[in-house]
Amino acid sequence: MNVENTQVQMRKGILEFCILNIISRGEVYASDMLEELTAARIMVVEGTLYPLLTRLKNAGLVEYKWVESTSGPPRKYYTLTPAGRVFLDSLQLTWNELVLSTSQIMTRNGSNGHTSG
Amino acid sequence: MNVENTQVQMRKGILEFCILNIISRGEVYASDMLEELTAARIMVVEGTLYPLLTRLKNAGLVEYKWVESTSGPPRKYYTLTPAGRVFLDSLQLTWNELVLSTSQIMTRNGSNGHTSG
Repeated sequence: MNVENTQVQMRKGILEFCILNIISRGEVYASDMLEELTAARIMVVEGTLYPLLTRLKNAGLVEYKWVESTSGPPRKYYTLTPAGRVFLDSLQLTWNELVLSTSQIMTRNGSNGHTSG
Repeated sequence: MNVENTQVQMRKGILEFCILNIISRGEVYASDMLEELTAARIMVVEGTLYPLLTRLKNAGLVEYKWVESTSGPPRKYYTLTPAGRVFLDSLQLTWNELVLSTSQIMTRNGSNGHTSG
């Protein structure tokens, strides 16, 4: 057990949640996702995103269509499936609960999550 | 991939973070941890907590001493080690970043994390 492992574990479910959130807005390219996740400081190497998108697609949560481009090769355009919407709503509930629970515990520490020792 | 797996993944690192937070306040019994985690709706079955405490101890992050009781058997009293304190501070930073990143993405969804559907 080391710090990095636990942090990776902490990020894993949350990364999936964030990606579904981004896709839920409408049709989106993988390159746009990478850009937004990076801007939000959530990850990211491309090597992490693409296998995750494939898993989400195989699970029936997202789908894509190919869109041709005037410059360069065709690109995949991702959208959420109805099952993906249900899944995202459920993750949203879990996330809200976890943030609430964690802040409840940290408040009893008198730290508000902002101090460190 | 199903909803429950991803939610379990999401909770895993966070549970560890919360337990270290509770122990960081001073000497604490496992039964007190269970009570607080349950009150905060974070888990919990005892079968989850005890192996996790053992892992944290083997990693040198927490330690315990036996405390005798006037009624009943002696109990373990947990405290954080100096390494555990460093580890907790690092998790705290990761957690703060993740909450910030996630809220940034959810704000662009116009959902604030409170709508669904």
